[in-house]
Amino acid sequence: MDNQKEYRYLTNINSPQDLRKLKTEDLPEVCQELRKDIINELSHNPGHFASSLGVVELTVALHYVFDTPYDRIVWDVGHQAYGHKILTGRRDQFCTNRKFKGIRPFPSPFESEYDTFTCGHASNSISAALGMAVAANKNKENRKIIAVIGDGAMSGGLAFEGLNNASSTPNNLLIILNDNNMSIDHSVGGMKQYLLRLNTNSLYNRIRFCLSNTLSGWGILNAKRKNSILRFNNSLKSMLTQQQNIFEGLNIRYFGPVDGHNVEELIRTLKDIKDLKGPKILHIHTVKGKGFKPAEKSATVWHAPGLFDKETGERIIKDTEGLPPRFQDVFGETLVELAEKNEKIVGVTPAMPTGCSMNLLMEKMPERTFDVGIAEGHAVTFSCGMAKDGLLPFCNIYSSFAQRAYDNIIHDMALTDLNMVLCLDRAGLVGEDGPTHHGAFDLAYLRPIPNLTVCSPYDEMELRRMMYTAQLPDMGPFVIRYPRGRGRLVEWRCPLEKVEVGTARKLKSGKNLAVLTIGPIGNLAADAIEMAEKELDGMQIAHYDMRFLKPIDEKTLHEIAKTFDKIITLENGTRKGGLGSAVLEFMADNGYTPKVKVLGLPDEFVEHGSVPELLRLTGLDTESIYNDIKTMLS
Amino acid sequence: MDNQKEYRYLTNINSPQDLRKLKTEDLPEVCQELRKDIINELSHNPGHFASSLGVVELTVALHYVFDTPYDRIVWDVGHQAYGHKILTGRRDQFCTNRKFKGIRPFPSPFESEYDTFTCGHASNSISAALGMAVAANKNKENRKIIAVIGDGAMSGGLAFEGLNNASSTPNNLLIILNDNNMSIDHSVGGMKQYLLRLNTNSLYNRIRFCLSNTLSGWGILNAKRKNSILRFNNSLKSMLTQQQNIFEGLNIRYFGPVDGHNVEELIRTLKDIKDLKGPKILHIHTVKGKGFKPAEKSATVWHAPGLFDKETGERIIKDTEGLPPRFQDVFGETLVELAEKNEKIVGVTPAMPTGCSMNLLMEKMPERTFDVGIAEGHAVTFSCGMAKDGLLPFCNIYSSFAQRAYDNIIHDMALTDLNMVLCLDRAGLVGEDGPTHHGAFDLAYLRPIPNLTVCSPYDEMELRRMMYTAQLPDMGPFVIRYPRGRGRLVEWRCPLEKVEVGTARKLKSGKNLAVLTIGPIGNLAADAIEMAEKELDGMQIAHYDMRFLKPIDEKTLHEIAKTFDKIITLENGTRKGGLGSAVLEFMADNGYTPKVKVLGLPDEFVEHGSVPELLRLTGLDTESIYNDIKTMLS
Repeated sequence: MDNQKEYRYLTNINSPQDLRKLKTEDLPEVCQELRKDIINELSHNPGHFASSLGVVELTVALHYVFDTPYDRIVWDVGHQAYGHKILTGRRDQFCTNRKFKGIRPFPSPFESEYDTFTCGHASNSISAALGMAVAANKNKENRKIIAVIGDGAMSGGLAFEGLNNASSTPNNLLIILNDNNMSIDHSVGGMKQYLLRLNTNSLYNRIRFCLSNTLSGWGILNAKRKNSILRFNNSLKSMLTQQQNIFEGLNIRYFGPVDGHNVEELIRTLKDIKDLKGPKILHIHTVKGKGFKPAEKSATVWHAPGLFDKETGERIIKDTEGLPPRFQDVFGETLVELAEKNEKIVGVTPAMPTGCSMNLLMEKMPERTFDVGIAEGHAVTFSCGMAKDGLLPFCNIYSSFAQRAYDNIIHDMALTDLNMVLCLDRAGLVGEDGPTHHGAFDLAYLRPIPNLTVCSPYDEMELRRMMYTAQLPDMGPFVIRYPRGRGRLVEWRCPLEKVEVGTARKLKSGKNLAVLTIGPIGNLAADAIEMAEKELDGMQIAHYDMRFLKPIDEKTLHEIAKTFDKIITLENGTRKGGLGSAVLEFMADNGYTPKVKVLGLPDEFVEHGSVPELLRLTGLDTESIYNDIKTMLS
Repeated sequence: MDNQKEYRYLTNINSPQDLRKLKTEDLPEVCQELRKDIINELSHNPGHFASSLGVVELTVALHYVFDTPYDRIVWDVGHQAYGHKILTGRRDQFCTNRKFKGIRPFPSPFESEYDTFTCGHASNSISAALGMAVAANKNKENRKIIAVIGDGAMSGGLAFEGLNNASSTPNNLLIILNDNNMSIDHSVGGMKQYLLRLNTNSLYNRIRFCLSNTLSGWGILNAKRKNSILRFNNSLKSMLTQQQNIFEGLNIRYFGPVDGHNVEELIRTLKDIKDLKGPKILHIHTVKGKGFKPAEKSATVWHAPGLFDKETGERIIKDTEGLPPRFQDVFGETLVELAEKNEKIVGVTPAMPTGCSMNLLMEKMPERTFDVGIAEGHAVTFSCGMAKDGLLPFCNIYSSFAQRAYDNIIHDMALTDLNMVLCLDRAGLVGEDGPTHHGAFDLAYLRPIPNLTVCSPYDEMELRRMMYTAQLPDMGPFVIRYPRGRGRLVEWRCPLEKVEVGTARKLKSGKNLAVLTIGPIGNLAADAIEMAEKELDGMQIAHYDMRFLKPIDEKTLHEIAKTFDKIITLENGTRKGGLGSAVLEFMADNGYTPKVKVLGLPDEFVEHGSVPELLRLTGLDTESIYNDIKTMLS
């Protein structure tokens, strides 16, 4: 009821078709309602916030002008797509956003036909949209394809590869560059507005086309010359030798910049350019967090602010006094501590200084910290170059994003056998960000790579020790993976001591069963073991923290194999190819034949939800581990 | 003797120091000798040819002007570095180039201090060199860092990420863009030469610096504005809104283009710009194959021409009549056959149409074949976009290069669960191209990815059947991996029939031992089994061609586990995480405890050499397999 009064338009928009029945002059109010709805929802059900506020007008304009879902909008990253979700029939379920079994955190083709492609990792929209545009041509479909990409994602190499290819393949792709850089160029002014009006007016484009033909007729723009801009290498040349803007140089027509918060102007512009042939880019300026003052002021904080008071704009910060630290804090603080002692240490992050807490080093030693943009591959190879000439980089990448740097890890880091440290943050289940963001594969994809040391700390102190060890002389390429979120130790500032590479720790003796774990999930195993010894009469269960996936501790494994005929392995990563496989390979290589139960993530993409929910879902919570121990012992 | 007469200079150049003792006017002759030496050697010891000829003058100029090895040259890809090898003390060993235990195929820091970084995979030079340039600054070393990158490699996303970062990090990097595109822009002329002379004259640069200061003084170029070009996002804006060339837009000073075959001009230019502060790019034009007419005419053929007559310029083509086809031929011809019947099929290649034989489809159906440039990540995601809208892409990537597309395979292809085919060519040992090019890891890195089907054909007919199967309706994301080179079947054009996904083939019954193989290396196992049954009295050895790594044939594995207590697994890929692990996991999951011997590539980077030599080295040749069978049965 209240809702109907508050939302004059939104309550009646169940799909973009409903939106398209409205008059253009109604749309500013639709935008206002949409913005209010997002603020309301997000204030009590946290999620990505500022990005979606920034594209409210764009979202409304796109669904108003284009015939979605027949026309395709491909969102890049997708954390800006809440408005899109609300307008495409998911308003009622939006209260379940990011919750277990609820609306997915990012657009997903499995959720809605309006979600055209998998979103989550940056910079893939142009490539995917170009594929759709080519398919439309081949299928003789007259559908429009629109990629929406932020200026951050535009710095990724994949986006450049997409742009590059867009210039050489016949297509009618529209790329919208959503430029919300906070250091907005204030020189945007009248002249540009004028050019824009000129540019986006289809009459002008017809004139331009005639002009091009006329010039050809006069021999000024000859066929050879025209042809020469069809391929990038040639375009590159034109760019080098002529005065052109980058997109025009890539043979992609450029329009803009447009004020991304003027919905009527956006609509007029989109209508003007939508039927133009060939690839084109529309550059719009938006403000991240638009319409919610605190978010406009500090967009980084409000990227995903957690709970907040929608009236006062105050974030509701949970009292974390007395809680153990996040692994991120431990990483960030320990890195500063190490860098203060070892002047060779530098920090490298692909656009995640705050997320991984490298901002601590950045504040203390800005000249020794490198934020290279959304560019994981470069982050690793750049680190390799520094390592080659004697620096000691700590390169921190989220586990699932490190997939983007896989070849760089193999070809540049491992093969060159350099002294450097790769820290994989967000390893294992990450929770609400879901299948695109779980760091499920790193143990399995790193283990086959020669020369690497791969380890994961059981707790905060071990993380500190591993970081200390990694920066000692001649340790070679060293990988440390750890999860998102809090550890278990309130007192974690232990002395920095060396961990012997390739050694496991026996946490607890036993005789009936050995549980081998790697990483902080070992703590759940410890709880399960405690429970089992209490419940199961007389059973004694050993617990080994393997610490190193690679090199694996063969001495300890021999000891285990000789003592136990029942083994459970546990890891917060896919059970195909990780610790479990390593143990099985060792046993086979050495002629042991114990019973081994491998626990880890299943061979499927794990959905979103809280980490405890997902641990339960995948059988990795304490209760499930206990049950596996019980079964093994019965 | 003859050598000394023929090579007046070269015989006395044992290092760049010797080169630097010569006068500039002697250098054209040095270039001529170097070119002759390369042609001589390559005519009887095949290797990459045209690329090295193209950079003879550049190579001489770089080592003449710069103080190598203190100064660092970072070659991109590195197949152009033969001249560099000859000038840096490896002339005498150059006759062992690419041979087992001989000179490495690409520059390698493990071979020479002049080889500054791992080469092989395209586009990594700028990132690595930038790292070195930053390290030089930090270490207060005044060394110069030079990245040499071709226009092809410049299309890779990694190169763009490197360029992007070079603009935001203080450094004095020199990037040389070696532009040898065969469709050379003929409008290069006097005006450009003029601009070049102006640009590269350090006086001009001083003036420019003063001018910039003056403009600042007048408030035209203010601090804010200056600052705004320090970061890419801002640079992007300048590029969008001003008339700038791409590199200048990225805040990288641009010089060129220069004739890359005029060694004296190159030297003058390099001397002029070497001490300029900040990142800079020198654009040079070269001709691939320069100085050897046939290679100049068709650089693709002469990229790696095999043996040839250095006098007549005729390639010595071995008689292949009656030989089995290369897997590449089978792929190329079968793809055409399938595309003729299934109009949804399209082909995608990242710059390897000839190498993988997609040129056959390209000739027949150019509008259905996409060469996207050196851009493996984009190749996969672009294919995904097409698959999403109903086309059926066959995307063909060399196995080791597919490491560049790992995230695209996980995030875009597998998670979106699309109907498309990824063919991994050059899987397993590739021979003379060595450690950067062996397709050693694909089975291990693909197996953990949910939704994928992963298979490898035993022979040519199986490749045809797998390709046919992959394009049937709703097969999901499908990967087929096969090696470089010839198969075994002269008659290979079998009917196109479906292979049941996830089923193995029993090639031979037995009772004492089961050998489980995947891919064409199974043929070596068959030979070894034959040998073993002859030599070892009464032994009967079963042979299963597993065909599918994923989903693995559990029915057959149950059968095997119930029949045999001794199993050997064999794959042409790393033994960590591949078929062997899959079998071990199955056995553990199902409570079987057979003895399993896992054969595959060792946990180290395998050097270069012929495939038979490397199979012997890694214990995967028939003799070694036979010995393993014998040991297992004794």
